Amino acid sequence: MQNNDLLAICHRYLDCLNRQDWDYLGKYVADNVSYNGQFIGFTGYLNARQNEFRAIPDLYFNVQLVMANESMVACRLNFNITPSHDFLGLPVHGKLISFSENVFYEFDNGKISKVWSVVDKAAIEVQLSQ
Amino acid sequence: MQNNDLLAICHRYLDCLNRQDWDYLGKYVADNVSYNGQFIGFTGYLNARQNEFRAIPDLYFNVQLVMANESMVACRLNFNITPSHDFLGLPVHGKLISFSENVFYEFDNGKISKVWSVVDKAAIEVQLSQ
Repeated sequence: MQNNDLLAICHRYLDCLNRQDWDYLGKYVADNVSYNGQFIGFTGYLNARQNEFRAIPDLYFNVQLVMANESMVACRLNFNITPSHDFLGLPVHGKLISFSENVFYEFDNGKISKVWSVVDKAAIEVQLSQ
Repeated sequence: MQNNDLLAICHRYLDCLNRQDWDYLGKYVADNVSYNGQFIGFTGYLNARQNEFRAIPDLYFNVQLVMANESMVACRLNFNITPSHDFLGLPVHGKLISFSENVFYEFDNGKISKVWSVVDKAAIEVQLSQ
């Protein structure tokens, strides 16, 4: 695929998440998707994203940086959110937190097949300690 | 710059770190470098990297994923290291830990001018709890 094709697909995938348009997630995510080297499959991936939106009513994926090659997209995503309860094991409980996620999406036949993500938990810890 | 030029520079930068070849770090890192949006400057960046190698005698940067466009490189780096004391505020104390860093390097005139990094602290916490 051309780099710009994957960039466009990735933007549509993130829009799909932001709209919680779950009927269309399968257009962007492969049946055999893995997350940080672990197979979770499409249903596991869908459930994880749906659970996040339930736990974080104002969840929104903001793209700070994005780049693509012929098989992969890398994004730096920024979040400004107020998780209702614990988040990543931290007692956030409705406080506004801001942090980033750096993530690689590997594509297979135009769908995300491997996700390699790191969330900046340390940045949240700093904000909760202030 | 061409994408392949930045890929090559990034590989040489990581080799330079792995060799602790501090006299050459200025070939790859700009005087006004920033880290996650904060100005630290070349001297601050050099000091931070030197302190890491002092605290982690077996520190080595392994590239799992790397991609470039005309102004930026994204890498997923893997580490298998034994920090002597605390690491990221965690009591590692000589235990072998494995984790990843997803990082974007923005280039200006062929040198790294902005670093956007997230280290997988949560993965380390899981290993320390086992």
